[in-house]
Amino acid sequence: MKNMLIKTCPLILLLFTLCQQLPAQSAATWIWYPGDFEIWLSNNMQNRRTERGTFFPVFWKYDSHYPLIDFHRNFILSAPEEVKIYAEGIYNVKLDGKPLEGAPKQITVPAGQHRINVKVFNQASVPAIYVSGKTIVSDTSWLVTFEDKEWIDETGKTSDVSATKWLNAGRWYFNTPDALPSACKLPVTVQHAISVTKNSNSTLMDFGRETFGFIRLHGLQGTGNIALYYGESKEEALSEKAAETLDRLSFHHQQKADSIMPLSKAFRYVNMVTSGDIKVDSVSMLYEHAGLKERGSFRCSDEEVNRIYDVSKYTFGLNTREFFIDGIKRDRWVWSGDAYQSYLMNYYLYFDSPTVARTMLALRGKDPVTSHINTIMDYTFYWFLGIYDYYLYTGDQSFIRQFYPRMQTMMEYCLGRRNKDGLMEGLPGDWIFIDWADGLSKTGAVSFEQLLLCRSLETMGLCADIVGEKGDADRYHQYAAVLKKQLFDLYWNDQQQALVHSRVNGKQTANVTRYANMFAIFYDYFTQQQKESVKHAVLLNDSIQRITTPYMRFYELEALCAMGEQSYVLKEMKDYWGGMLKLGATSFWEEYNPAKHGVEHFAMYGRPFGKSLCHAWGASPLYLLGKYYLGVKPTSPGYATYTVQPALGGLKWIEGKVPTPQGDIAVYCSTEEIKVTTVDGTGLLRFRSKTKPVCKTGSISAKGDNWYEMTMQPATSYVVAYQSLKEEQHGKRK
Amino acid sequence: MKNMLIKTCPLILLLFTLCQQLPAQSAATWIWYPGDFEIWLSNNMQNRRTERGTFFPVFWKYDSHYPLIDFHRNFILSAPEEVKIYAEGIYNVKLDGKPLEGAPKQITVPAGQHRINVKVFNQASVPAIYVSGKTIVSDTSWLVTFEDKEWIDETGKTSDVSATKWLNAGRWYFNTPDALPSACKLPVTVQHAISVTKNSNSTLMDFGRETFGFIRLHGLQGTGNIALYYGESKEEALSEKAAETLDRLSFHHQQKADSIMPLSKAFRYVNMVTSGDIKVDSVSMLYEHAGLKERGSFRCSDEEVNRIYDVSKYTFGLNTREFFIDGIKRDRWVWSGDAYQSYLMNYYLYFDSPTVARTMLALRGKDPVTSHINTIMDYTFYWFLGIYDYYLYTGDQSFIRQFYPRMQTMMEYCLGRRNKDGLMEGLPGDWIFIDWADGLSKTGAVSFEQLLLCRSLETMGLCADIVGEKGDADRYHQYAAVLKKQLFDLYWNDQQQALVHSRVNGKQTANVTRYANMFAIFYDYFTQQQKESVKHAVLLNDSIQRITTPYMRFYELEALCAMGEQSYVLKEMKDYWGGMLKLGATSFWEEYNPAKHGVEHFAMYGRPFGKSLCHAWGASPLYLLGKYYLGVKPTSPGYATYTVQPALGGLKWIEGKVPTPQGDIAVYCSTEEIKVTTVDGTGLLRFRSKTKPVCKTGSISAKGDNWYEMTMQPATSYVVAYQSLKEEQHGKRK
Repeated sequence: MKNMLIKTCPLILLLFTLCQQLPAQSAATWIWYPGDFEIWLSNNMQNRRTERGTFFPVFWKYDSHYPLIDFHRNFILSAPEEVKIYAEGIYNVKLDGKPLEGAPKQITVPAGQHRINVKVFNQASVPAIYVSGKTIVSDTSWLVTFEDKEWIDETGKTSDVSATKWLNAGRWYFNTPDALPSACKLPVTVQHAISVTKNSNSTLMDFGRETFGFIRLHGLQGTGNIALYYGESKEEALSEKAAETLDRLSFHHQQKADSIMPLSKAFRYVNMVTSGDIKVDSVSMLYEHAGLKERGSFRCSDEEVNRIYDVSKYTFGLNTREFFIDGIKRDRWVWSGDAYQSYLMNYYLYFDSPTVARTMLALRGKDPVTSHINTIMDYTFYWFLGIYDYYLYTGDQSFIRQFYPRMQTMMEYCLGRRNKDGLMEGLPGDWIFIDWADGLSKTGAVSFEQLLLCRSLETMGLCADIVGEKGDADRYHQYAAVLKKQLFDLYWNDQQQALVHSRVNGKQTANVTRYANMFAIFYDYFTQQQKESVKHAVLLNDSIQRITTPYMRFYELEALCAMGEQSYVLKEMKDYWGGMLKLGATSFWEEYNPAKHGVEHFAMYGRPFGKSLCHAWGASPLYLLGKYYLGVKPTSPGYATYTVQPALGGLKWIEGKVPTPQGDIAVYCSTEEIKVTTVDGTGLLRFRSKTKPVCKTGSISAKGDNWYEMTMQPATSYVVAYQSLKEEQHGKRK
Repeated sequence: MKNMLIKTCPLILLLFTLCQQLPAQSAATWIWYPGDFEIWLSNNMQNRRTERGTFFPVFWKYDSHYPLIDFHRNFILSAPEEVKIYAEGIYNVKLDGKPLEGAPKQITVPAGQHRINVKVFNQASVPAIYVSGKTIVSDTSWLVTFEDKEWIDETGKTSDVSATKWLNAGRWYFNTPDALPSACKLPVTVQHAISVTKNSNSTLMDFGRETFGFIRLHGLQGTGNIALYYGESKEEALSEKAAETLDRLSFHHQQKADSIMPLSKAFRYVNMVTSGDIKVDSVSMLYEHAGLKERGSFRCSDEEVNRIYDVSKYTFGLNTREFFIDGIKRDRWVWSGDAYQSYLMNYYLYFDSPTVARTMLALRGKDPVTSHINTIMDYTFYWFLGIYDYYLYTGDQSFIRQFYPRMQTMMEYCLGRRNKDGLMEGLPGDWIFIDWADGLSKTGAVSFEQLLLCRSLETMGLCADIVGEKGDADRYHQYAAVLKKQLFDLYWNDQQQALVHSRVNGKQTANVTRYANMFAIFYDYFTQQQKESVKHAVLLNDSIQRITTPYMRFYELEALCAMGEQSYVLKEMKDYWGGMLKLGATSFWEEYNPAKHGVEHFAMYGRPFGKSLCHAWGASPLYLLGKYYLGVKPTSPGYATYTVQPALGGLKWIEGKVPTPQGDIAVYCSTEEIKVTTVDGTGLLRFRSKTKPVCKTGSISAKGDNWYEMTMQPATSYVVAYQSLKEEQHGKRK
């Protein structure tokens, strides 16, 4: 996440243009208006939050899909073709502009050049089509619009000047006619409790670790009620009055029957309480998961770190669902700040770009913009940053090309809410979140928000350039430059050698917090000298309010890693994440304060079991270990170029893989040897060595101060013999 | 529609404010976010257009209801109360901010002051609730929002600064728990054919006149296909290849059964063609209608005019459905230009304000504005004019208060599309409709569009004043003033004594059409002298392209009536509408050209039966006879003041009623006597008399040139003896 120069890659542009012109080659799939299925699905998914059996939806605006969509594509056929048409919704079909009678399920398209239009209405779920012939298939090369604006005058003539905006259709994994998008469900696998404790009218089941899915009751018989109390802890499951989630059901089964709970839940423990003469033979669960392939990996000489990595992976997997959600017990919502970290973790584990795009589309929703994303100012900015990183890691411009107008209206909403100094300050309805931290001031114009806006404006400039909006690009670059200058003019305090937290009533406050300072490090907004001062004045200074959430630990540790403090960060990681493991955590938590004891750890929001014990932002070691220990990161979009800069951080050896669009880069590093297997793209290996390093297949250059670099060719294995510096540089705590 | 000064009536404002504060007194009804049900229902209704059995939806954007709505209201109870809660959608209930477990169907509200919140999600249909207790009932005093923006921080504290915008809930006629809004259907009554002609495998049924509804097949038995060909003419029903609407069904009934067609259709004739061994005992239809009460009436000494009035009424009734639609065969869509005329007719027949409001909401849809209403520039402006008239006729400010933001964004869309001279000129995607007329130029900046924009800006100024947006009001008034000046500076041609049709490339064209000129008459934009010149130079000048559509005849005849040409207009009315009746019309047509013959009358859009024979805009005599013959019109909002200025137009006598918010004004006028029975509000009777008129209960003032005026008190009957002028003033054709 360093301030890399991202420029439009001509090769990628060319490929994109070519793809637009090629005939459809892919297999048929269900398609829709891009972004619409994502909105529809996220509404449904976020509705699955319940609290004590009560529906608990979001408090911001839900948008809707467009209920009426026109799909079309031109085809050139060498022979006539039978084409099957499936649609979700009522529909019509036009061949070369002429409507066919009724709603045909199969049509014959003659040889030659033809256009097929399908127009679909569906209010309940997303208008979608699946078209399948020998060469004519529905895929993302189809064009879609929600307003075709093609009128017919009294003579039967159609409008001759079209202003219709066409986008490429959206898709996911619905690749057969009967895999209906509206019936979208993640896969499930059966799991069983590892221990069952029966009492008179209750049964406590322990599934061994944090899990997620649908409880299934087997051999249910009789008349009566069943209550299921779900617990991420045993204490929660046993607390009928305070368990956060539950199911209460009435049954009247003369014959034995099975029953699956309607809503998936997060739990390790389930306490089943029965009344009446009801009997249940046994209980199992259907574990629900996204089924993504783990591409990234990490192993090292420290078993505790390996365990941290594994539990991070498990935590992240549980929270990677239809979208990247915050936590599986609650909120099960798509929060932009949480999702942003998930994007980054994803680039080092699944590299599943569609989940990133889906999440960004769900978060953005539709115009008009009536509030910040999730109502939170910083979360709006993370949305822009997510796009920056998406392009950097994947090189995919299609998201930007299709959704630039949504980016623009979102940014204009922000710009329209600046104060008289041009700074973002909370207006009524704006939640300034930053972090959960006691007494953290949200008043006035907070430096952290300006910094995020500045980075967002840089992103907008980049995207405007990509879509060829020169005027926009100039404007956004200019705004970013002005704001960046203001950031230092207005917030930098020479005495404190740091950015201060805020300006209130136009005056700098004396308060220094970590937030803006650590972001300014890995955004490269600071000079090297400022970085060094800030490292000591803020990051390693205990008198500055400490960060207690894994959410902001993510960035704090990233900033330290970016400053070469891998040894220090590793120790912190073992303390913090290792601390949770020592308390028996099977997944990482929403928040962890080592000063608390026992059931205090489960409380939050004023409720005894309010805390989520499986929160995506708890999985940040995935990202840190991949990016700052294996040391792999792109330096131009889509890993066309990248660096590998392994750091042991005091470990004897590390090894693992980092996924890229072109395959997985494998890295091994010990104190004496570095091994890298590359993929397409040009890599740069960077490392320090006491002695002159040796590589048989590559050419190593010395860069001074024990630094060495080697350019690596695509799809090649390198072995470097070197000698690591005994004492790695690390910060001393004041 | 004269340029009356509409000002905010303090009494109405006071009543409005009082109503907001009174406890709920009304009976329980289903409520929703205002405008949302209207959008949902109009989508569904407009989907009912089919052509040759093919789904034929609109070509503009369908909007959606908000799928997630929070409803709340505060109550003060003297005793605890049991309250039943029904919802369309999944929901939760909060009492005083605390969620109740599950989705309770009944709650107990203790005595004292309490707040009830119900939050409902529904994607398929509109989130709606029905709440019913002794005093706690759901009605339009409940407040609703689509984003409550009430977050909870880590301590459990909720946001303390709310920026939530609350509107009053919307409702219609769903007044029992089981009258679900999502199941909305208009009432039906059974009707039978007046003649049935059977052939070998076909049966032709004649229902006697144009009608609308669902065909029901009785005693259906056997296996085979049935095709129903609907015809507004016999020729259409008998044309299996060209009938515009049809049903094709396959049956396999061993036992006799009835079958009702899924979609209502417009027809007078139905041709049923069977194949296979299928038998049908008989056929009936379910006539579907809005069931509105006819309050206005008109009778006169000319039976042809009476017949024109009756067929107008029937035509209008058929097209007054969930919304005011254009025509019942096709398009069955809500078109703003058509609807605007229906609003005006409605004020003289049903005075059903909710249908006007519903139609305006359906037309407007939601932000963002991506095109003109129905894609037509003039239709956007008619939407504003509809609001002007709605307020003038009903005095209801609630529509303006609730939907001012939608008016504003619509107007800003228009203002953002002006050319460098500040004039509206068609951009790609803008349909300049004006009228169906051979060779009518739509190029450049058309005077008619500027005139409509000017009136729309005046409306915006008025509405901004009502909602207290002083800055907006000033801006809109200023824009209107500038544009009005431009209209004369840029379009008035002294030589032609008229506004020219357009400016192309910044230069006035020589072309004069009727459109802008006739609107400028009844908007009082012309001086009296200009009106007289225009009357002769344009309205009564045969060398100016004639109007052939009832749509624009509406305004042409209104302009002539506004100039006192009732005798001339009556003759035109008898020629034009009488002409359709002489051809056997049982409802009035989309278009009528006396020069055509036989089946030529049925053709349009290049299709032999493309023309609609029952089009709302064909019913304009309803409006003309009420407003310009009975002569009743409001002069301040909601008929607080009004004029009655009867005009015989050459008839011996006329009589009828005109509905107002306070009741019906009854008028009788012969050549010797005028009788008026008034309602609440202050009326002004205006008439001309050769002799000094006499009224026992009122005080008549002479105004010169044989004009007399008498102020009329509320709820009083007046009889005036007078002597009408023998030769009424009327224009001579050149």
